[in-house]
Amino acid sequence: MANFGLVDLRLVNPRDGWPQEKAWASASGADWPLNGARIYQRLEAAVADLQRVYATTARPREIQLPILTPRAAAAEWSQAIANGERVGLLFGGERAGLETADIALCQAVVTLPVDVRFKSLNLAQAVAINAYEWRMTVAEGAPPAFREGPPPADGAAILGLFEHFERELDAAGFFHPPEKRPSMVQNLRSALGRARFNDQEVRTFRGVVTALSRGRGRVLEKIAREKAGKDGGE
Amino acid sequence: MANFGLVDLRLVNPRDGWPQEKAWASASGADWPLNGARIYQRLEAAVADLQRVYATTARPREIQLPILTPRAAAAEWSQAIANGERVGLLFGGERAGLETADIALCQAVVTLPVDVRFKSLNLAQAVAINAYEWRMTVAEGAPPAFREGPPPADGAAILGLFEHFERELDAAGFFHPPEKRPSMVQNLRSALGRARFNDQEVRTFRGVVTALSRGRGRVLEKIAREKAGKDGGE
Repeated sequence: MANFGLVDLRLVNPRDGWPQEKAWASASGADWPLNGARIYQRLEAAVADLQRVYATTARPREIQLPILTPRAAAAEWSQAIANGERVGLLFGGERAGLETADIALCQAVVTLPVDVRFKSLNLAQAVAINAYEWRMTVAEGAPPAFREGPPPADGAAILGLFEHFERELDAAGFFHPPEKRPSMVQNLRSALGRARFNDQEVRTFRGVVTALSRGRGRVLEKIAREKAGKDGGE
Repeated sequence: MANFGLVDLRLVNPRDGWPQEKAWASASGADWPLNGARIYQRLEAAVADLQRVYATTARPREIQLPILTPRAAAAEWSQAIANGERVGLLFGGERAGLETADIALCQAVVTLPVDVRFKSLNLAQAVAINAYEWRMTVAEGAPPAFREGPPPADGAAILGLFEHFERELDAAGFFHPPEKRPSMVQNLRSALGRARFNDQEVRTFRGVVTALSRGRGRVLEKIAREKAGKDGGE
């Protein structure tokens, strides 16, 4: 991170706890990302203030998100940062990598062009290559900023929309059979997340969900009244 | 090396001798560069059959050679290899790096764009980044390696979803005041359209709209029955 100018380290539920003396010992003096590291219990909290998060992983099968090389991704987030967005790059653990539920909180996937003969890439090297690509965009000079309207909403706002949406779908009996709920939620989140709603759009879609669900209430009342009128016939 | 398709490892006067069991243990199964490694006592012998050698090091003060980024270097040696040349990339030891006499045997210097605050780059990461840049020159010539899954749905399918959605929002009384309906519809369509749903996702979101607005049949009937049992109370 320090080699290529990245400083903001966020750790989610670190396996062996934090702080770790070994981390400082391995840093060869590049202590500042470690000193400033922030610890989160859940990924949702770690990305709450970010407007874009890129998941670094091999191509996921279960989820529909844009797949980018580190180079293409760095070009995107360099542009986004020039526009004032806060961008994060998400890495999984050395062994297990990222879970689909984690990836579903991201807006794109970054995959390294590894040789098919040996795909398993060391975590530190994956970080170095992505950080290097970021640095190259800085070294080459930031691209001119073209604002295309309001920036995307941050992770907390998007998550709030997702959870509101899913609560109402639960109430409507949408998720069945229940064991499919997690994958159904992931698919909805990744599909909707690709739209990169801004704050106004998040508010609008919360209004949409509320309107449709309350509308349901009215329809239900109407039907109930009709059924009651028929003495519960049919 | 194996991650990015490099196989020909040459070691010059290795400090701790060769072979080293630890090397295989660290390779996580990528044994072939180690199995085929060749050992030389002097750098001159190691590079004897090569037509170009690039020295990977911080910018040397004492020697006048072209200084390239890994990207520019990879473009050069990719071209050279296409022309039938044999090209080598020379790294120094983890601590001491390369001596001027070593660099003088090379035709160019490759320097990574490290942050001035922390210039000392781990050897393994320097190798990974240079190998990655080599791989990118191969990958960019190869057929597209990054399919993004099913194509977006066509305009008719998307329009069908929009209209379904808007019908239900009309029924729920969402669009008010009425004169704002056209601009509200446009905003919803453009926000949702950015997600570029595929056919499966269009079906899913139509199911979502139906579920939110009507509930699933069973939920509906159950509630209707309950309400009927209360003689349509509330």
